[in-house]
Amino acid sequence: MEFTNVTASALANIYFDGKVISHAITTASGEKKTLGVILPGSYHFGTEAAERMDIVGGRCTVILDDSEETLNVESGSHFDVPANSGFTIKVEDEACHYVCSFLS
Amino acid sequence: MEFTNVTASALANIYFDGKVISHAITTASGEKKTLGVILPGSYHFGTEAAERMDIVGGRCTVILDDSEETLNVESGSHFDVPANSGFTIKVEDEACHYVCSFLS
Repeated sequence: MEFTNVTASALANIYFDGKVISHAITTASGEKKTLGVILPGSYHFGTEAAERMDIVGGRCTVILDDSEETLNVESGSHFDVPANSGFTIKVEDEACHYVCSFLS
Repeated sequence: MEFTNVTASALANIYFDGKVISHAITTASGEKKTLGVILPGSYHFGTEAAERMDIVGGRCTVILDDSEETLNVESGSHFDVPANSGFTIKVEDEACHYVCSFLS
């Protein structure tokens, strides 16, 4: 998967001592996204804006805040996270690659 | 630092068990670059095409193959690596962010 005609930031975003790393892009229409990779482990992220998380490589399991359901998300699938909320994401075996779209 | 009007690949490049991670971009004029981050450690990379490595965050020390000189490269500086060669890069303390330009 690739994004054309975008602006890409050279400085990476680094979380959890480098276990989660992303680079920010802005599309021609002004959409803010991050292209990221999650190494094996379990991590909780909070959200401000609502987010759409597209998994584009590997797989993960996700539990949204205020939910007890475990979502199994494979490459090619996505999950949505409400604004002002969060999710716990767990990756096993191989790295998981994602595209996070911030929904205004 | 940011790059406008580029094509960005969503899948990351992962080296050394995630200690070095990059995302590839292609500029409008067809230049191939990677936006990457290096976590503390010492790593050797081989080159095929010649490369220009711009350090855009943090710092590193570099020893080019066939050289005994240690280069101290700060953010805002760069080093060049000949084709079919390599370099050993060492990062201490904070992560080092780079832009690698592949010189045809």
